[in-house]
Amino acid sequence: MELIIGPRLYSTWSLRPWLVLKRCGADFTVREIDIYSPEGQAELERISPSRLVPLLNVDGETVWDSMAISVWCAENFPHVRLWPADPHARWLARSAACEMHGGFTGLRTHCTMDRNHSMVGPDRSPTPTVPAVERDIRRIVSLWTDMRTRFGADGPYLFGEWSVPDAFFTPVAARFLHYQVDLAAYGDDGTAAAYRDALLAQPDFLEWSAEALR
Amino acid sequence: MELIIGPRLYSTWSLRPWLVLKRCGADFTVREIDIYSPEGQAELERISPSRLVPLLNVDGETVWDSMAISVWCAENFPHVRLWPADPHARWLARSAACEMHGGFTGLRTHCTMDRNHSMVGPDRSPTPTVPAVERDIRRIVSLWTDMRTRFGADGPYLFGEWSVPDAFFTPVAARFLHYQVDLAAYGDDGTAAAYRDALLAQPDFLEWSAEALR
Repeated sequence: MELIIGPRLYSTWSLRPWLVLKRCGADFTVREIDIYSPEGQAELERISPSRLVPLLNVDGETVWDSMAISVWCAENFPHVRLWPADPHARWLARSAACEMHGGFTGLRTHCTMDRNHSMVGPDRSPTPTVPAVERDIRRIVSLWTDMRTRFGADGPYLFGEWSVPDAFFTPVAARFLHYQVDLAAYGDDGTAAAYRDALLAQPDFLEWSAEALR
Repeated sequence: MELIIGPRLYSTWSLRPWLVLKRCGADFTVREIDIYSPEGQAELERISPSRLVPLLNVDGETVWDSMAISVWCAENFPHVRLWPADPHARWLARSAACEMHGGFTGLRTHCTMDRNHSMVGPDRSPTPTVPAVERDIRRIVSLWTDMRTRFGADGPYLFGEWSVPDAFFTPVAARFLHYQVDLAAYGDDGTAAAYRDALLAQPDFLEWSAEALR
């Protein structure tokens, strides 16, 4: 089983299924493609149906898309709890992860992670003052605060114990760090900042970061 | 159980979970909100965590996001086959639906469905000649052709029998009709066009269209 990813420094989409596979204890190798080079682009064209990363090569098949790979994990590691056990929490966990998967285009457009903006590097950029970014940050603060307040009793993650939405929001936490987002300025009472810090302190994320900086 | 949707004429995201709920034979009511009016926007702000449609109100909970609602359906109607039974087909069906859920921003940005561009009306617009649109159309033709060729033996839908990706691609078929996209000009050998027509001929989509035009 092989996970094909973009550069660890920048590829937010690649980090997500990598975190889920790690949580499953999956036995997998990683191939990093430099999607910014012509060679990398040519390889992507050859191996990726969508010309995007990440991809999971498994059982002779190429599964593409970060959410589809995460759901593949839930199906193939049924004994690992990847979604909350409580039905209501589980429904909202899917809503939260899917909202991240399909939305927040303001943040993704104006707070990019790319060759100039690393998920894990020490350099920092100021928060862009763009209405679409500010709307997205406010929404994320509100979402994080609501879920943590309602479901967060059993652990530091969005629904207490770790679940798939945490994988999807880890790159958002990294973006907030890189772009020096002061969450209090967007309505945070400290709940969202504490959750951001929990994501940034995940051992698996620290392992990814160390690998990225090597 | 209540599904809250945007205007049936324009809201591509609302159509998707509506089709899935219909396929389940779910007993649900529909509330349409005019998201283009100040009153509709105010109502959305009040009732929608993400300020978006669609929403499913069920069991005292609000489930948001079209994909999360579709997965809710799969969980709560386990006897309805919403994903292909064959594991490989199922993995790729999730990839295809998720690629639509998170991607094709060229098509979504430049071939909008809104007050001037209806999913079901008789008016037609020319295909925008924008590189991002042309890339997306080529990719969709390739994806549809690959899946139909490999898995389409048992029916007219993407994986033969109807499954969730068909719900996600129905608004794409409607876009192709409205924007007069000649799929042959994007590499289609007729396979993609036949699938588009199968989506547009779904009885549930015809019911949605009739309701939209009332």
